[in-house]
Amino acid sequence: MDVRIVIVNPIYEGNIGSIARVMKNFGFNDLILINPCQIGKFARAMASHAVDVLESAKIETFDDILKNSELIIGTTGIMGTGSYTRNPYPLAKLNEKFNNNIGVASILFGQEDQGLPNKILNKCDMILNIATNPTYPVMNISHAAAVILYNISGLTTKSLSEKMELASHEDLMRLLDHISDVLKDIEFPPHKRRRVLCNLKRICGKSELTPKEVTMLRGILSRIQMSIKNNH
Amino acid sequence: MDVRIVIVNPIYEGNIGSIARVMKNFGFNDLILINPCQIGKFARAMASHAVDVLESAKIETFDDILKNSELIIGTTGIMGTGSYTRNPYPLAKLNEKFNNNIGVASILFGQEDQGLPNKILNKCDMILNIATNPTYPVMNISHAAAVILYNISGLTTKSLSEKMELASHEDLMRLLDHISDVLKDIEFPPHKRRRVLCNLKRICGKSELTPKEVTMLRGILSRIQMSIKNNH
Repeated sequence: MDVRIVIVNPIYEGNIGSIARVMKNFGFNDLILINPCQIGKFARAMASHAVDVLESAKIETFDDILKNSELIIGTTGIMGTGSYTRNPYPLAKLNEKFNNNIGVASILFGQEDQGLPNKILNKCDMILNIATNPTYPVMNISHAAAVILYNISGLTTKSLSEKMELASHEDLMRLLDHISDVLKDIEFPPHKRRRVLCNLKRICGKSELTPKEVTMLRGILSRIQMSIKNNH
Repeated sequence: MDVRIVIVNPIYEGNIGSIARVMKNFGFNDLILINPCQIGKFARAMASHAVDVLESAKIETFDDILKNSELIIGTTGIMGTGSYTRNPYPLAKLNEKFNNNIGVASILFGQEDQGLPNKILNKCDMILNIATNPTYPVMNISHAAAVILYNISGLTTKSLSEKMELASHEDLMRLLDHISDVLKDIEFPPHKRRRVLCNLKRICGKSELTPKEVTMLRGILSRIQMSIKNNH
């Protein structure tokens, strides 16, 4: 889905700039403002290299949002109790929902000190709440945006920087064979070798070595072997 | 593990206050500052209801961190290339690591405009990088803290607000039987009932109804039935 970020009645321009920045960090561009405060130098400073997102923000009304969205998602820092249950949708599942549907999804953030009014929350298709500590659940609006946008960016699951490519079991076996050879070369007491190799195998297992790291370690082992041979 | 947040050479007091706030939002209290700027009114304003975290921050040196930590984690917005590979650990796995070990884990954030210097990154046990859009990867320091602290808070997996309790298959079947009864009561054309029920079954399936929602829907159906009987 096409995700748009909507800020309702923002009163601090710095927050608008901050949200523009974190939108660009996670690859989002469509910023909508409903009844915003004046936007000036401080908003631009907080937007940093995302002034383009800030300057292309559109001013709309809530009726425009109702007309132009397939899915309207309200965010709240406070879970309602009593007769009116806010019944939130899990943030972790939202990315999947966006991937599997088409249309415009508008994510609404409320005024900094009040959040979204109930009359708007009632018109939202879904409610989103970030799990926080009950002693202080109310987040800064741009922090809430950062957490939500990170989770829906889809970058997390795609990015190599958040996934590790593990070395194959065979690579690890070759590394351990190599270590075993070195233990012989350095005349490590034979009756202790099996136990030491077993421990090293466990260490390799839990350290989640990548192919590059295995190659590097084997390079070091080869250098050790060369040094030993040269000294004999 | 006991998680401590360390800010190295911060130059904007607002960021220190912002980080204190998001720490409290996610249940963290230990803030360490290395060579910080002056902390005044603006930091306290940004900390909002987390002034206690801000005021209990300790000033230490990097040598103190080295001495007092079991695990030192450096954050970076830029992945190194060439000979010096930063080789990051996946953020999604960090929570598990913290749960399964004991000791102090220090998470280091660098100066706003420069990040952590290489001489500190080299001494870190692990490197953490948030997957961002390559067109603008550099995040605001407190946004980066928000995303990391959310992911390691452990609140996500514990909190009911981020998990939905699904109604059982039997509950759904009872709901559909109830709908089927209502279709009879309202004299819905018999030859269309099977197809409509099948479609309704699919809608119920994908809408991930909770037990409470099923109860509410059945309450509505009962009221419909009562209204029909009263009018006959």
